[in-house]
Amino acid sequence: MPELRKDPIIGRWVIIATERAKRPDQFGSHSEDSILEKPCPFCEGHESQTPPEIYAMRTKPSPENQPGWDVRVVPSVTPFLKIEGDLDRRGKGLYDLTNGVGAHEIVVETNQHIANMADLGEEHIANVITSYINRILDLEKDVRFKYVLIFKNYGWSAGGGRVRHARSQLIATPVNPKRVKEELVGARQYYEYHERCIFCDLIKQEIEQKERLILDMDGFIVIAPFASRFPFEMWILPKKHSCDFVKLDMPQRAGLARTLKKCLLKLKKGLNDPPYNFILHTAPFRREKAGYWKSVDFDYHWHIEITPRLTRVAGFEWGTGFYICPVPPENAAKFLREVDVG
Amino acid sequence: MPELRKDPIIGRWVIIATERAKRPDQFGSHSEDSILEKPCPFCEGHESQTPPEIYAMRTKPSPENQPGWDVRVVPSVTPFLKIEGDLDRRGKGLYDLTNGVGAHEIVVETNQHIANMADLGEEHIANVITSYINRILDLEKDVRFKYVLIFKNYGWSAGGGRVRHARSQLIATPVNPKRVKEELVGARQYYEYHERCIFCDLIKQEIEQKERLILDMDGFIVIAPFASRFPFEMWILPKKHSCDFVKLDMPQRAGLARTLKKCLLKLKKGLNDPPYNFILHTAPFRREKAGYWKSVDFDYHWHIEITPRLTRVAGFEWGTGFYICPVPPENAAKFLREVDVG
Repeated sequence: MPELRKDPIIGRWVIIATERAKRPDQFGSHSEDSILEKPCPFCEGHESQTPPEIYAMRTKPSPENQPGWDVRVVPSVTPFLKIEGDLDRRGKGLYDLTNGVGAHEIVVETNQHIANMADLGEEHIANVITSYINRILDLEKDVRFKYVLIFKNYGWSAGGGRVRHARSQLIATPVNPKRVKEELVGARQYYEYHERCIFCDLIKQEIEQKERLILDMDGFIVIAPFASRFPFEMWILPKKHSCDFVKLDMPQRAGLARTLKKCLLKLKKGLNDPPYNFILHTAPFRREKAGYWKSVDFDYHWHIEITPRLTRVAGFEWGTGFYICPVPPENAAKFLREVDVG
Repeated sequence: MPELRKDPIIGRWVIIATERAKRPDQFGSHSEDSILEKPCPFCEGHESQTPPEIYAMRTKPSPENQPGWDVRVVPSVTPFLKIEGDLDRRGKGLYDLTNGVGAHEIVVETNQHIANMADLGEEHIANVITSYINRILDLEKDVRFKYVLIFKNYGWSAGGGRVRHARSQLIATPVNPKRVKEELVGARQYYEYHERCIFCDLIKQEIEQKERLILDMDGFIVIAPFASRFPFEMWILPKKHSCDFVKLDMPQRAGLARTLKKCLLKLKKGLNDPPYNFILHTAPFRREKAGYWKSVDFDYHWHIEITPRLTRVAGFEWGTGFYICPVPPENAAKFLREVDVG
């Protein structure tokens, strides 16, 4: 069973792989050269090469684990966390740990061998968004979990795998990730003083100032954040206040799909198809007795952070949480605004 | 003037390079292939190829910026922060920023063309440590600065530069870095309840449990931390409580040099000379009116974190502060204990 361990000083949780742990000689053997093109286990017709599906969207009725799907969700073959087992949160002297219970799923975004989400159709991306929502709604029923993270690693240096087939990942965790908790705490503090959502205020300011605004369309804005960590970092935020990604209705999903596609196309065209990550930040699960975070409806605001991987991150950043961004967000926004993607 | 900008939600400071900002076409042009071997600007006899020295340790008297030095400190030619100017901390709507005032120096660790600090002599490493201390003591006099970070990027994927000559970097900042502040806050909270230093308790537990202990020598212990973020991560801690790295006396500096060299040799021999970073975490400057952190003497404990770069870090880690470590620290410690470096 993997373990979740908490740093006793700063309270950061870490997943420690205890089974199939890597041996020292297993590091550094893969490189970009080891990209596999075919046979791709995520292409239509190769369903037997992945574990059985957890979920699929089908445009026409077809049996499970057979061709005919549009978006398909399967368990990871190398899961960070295990779906079976109890939490068993416990201490060990001054340390805290818990069993590595959780879910780790792969959202295969298309049945075709297409690498970049930017190249999928808008309606198709809307189906991927609906698949995310349906998986979150399903995992929310499991009382062991506090949070679902949805993220994408595209390209080798962004942590993408050896197969170039568009997919995202989903991880359900029994603890709230540190970064998410910091956002919740920061947003709560702002709300307590101002009685306004900090993200709503930020959106208003960005629309007025314009210099960091990249897109304003279909109910969403895209900005280069004021304190960008990475060059050409982009945040997508819904203009209408909402803490919860799963509340998106169908027209909003279509709007988000159009906005997201446009962002990814701007990266692809403007920056020569760079590696990138994106991650969804939404409110944690709020159940009847979930306590403190039950009431984040007014003070938190879901958003997507897209970070192209153009620079190496070094000791300074790791050791300090202090980033150096070589491109002012205002310049990045101007550049990305001007990339014409039709 | 570069700017320091604060993320309004989580309070993280970011350095934004506003001058000599990179253009989009300037990314990704360098790779490991572009390593320069000769002529090396850091070798003895090439002193004119760097900016004039700020500090040098000389074994025999020789003029400034001439051969005869043992350790030499020069300003960075591409500084993240600028030494001239006022802080001018100010707001911009809901955002906070300040001028990018600070120091960015390069500590050239040897006059010979040697790449890895592991290959320097113990006495020589002690001189590097003394140079760190002397530079911190000098920068502490500048009331604009709150913190000095000392770190090393060794090897390409750890952010090392194009020249393979052993050196470390020093950055003085007018704000406390987020990660350091989190440690200070966490250690303070523990102290307030227990009236003991959390690091001292942790050292005691690690010595008793032994399973994560790598070295116990010369007044220092080296452990694989319980919640390691990276495989084969190592922390060096002084066994005797001290919040302040600059308080090391000469015998302690010699002990630290022996311990550090042993750690770096174990990495080099055991893991095939991997890229690595190390970073010194010491107390912030505590001046008469420095307020809250003035009294960290009892609750904080300086240490060095060494992190080999064996894995790529992906979207999940960036977006969450939630790391996945594929090697249990107990296995890493056992492996590193057994690497024989004499």
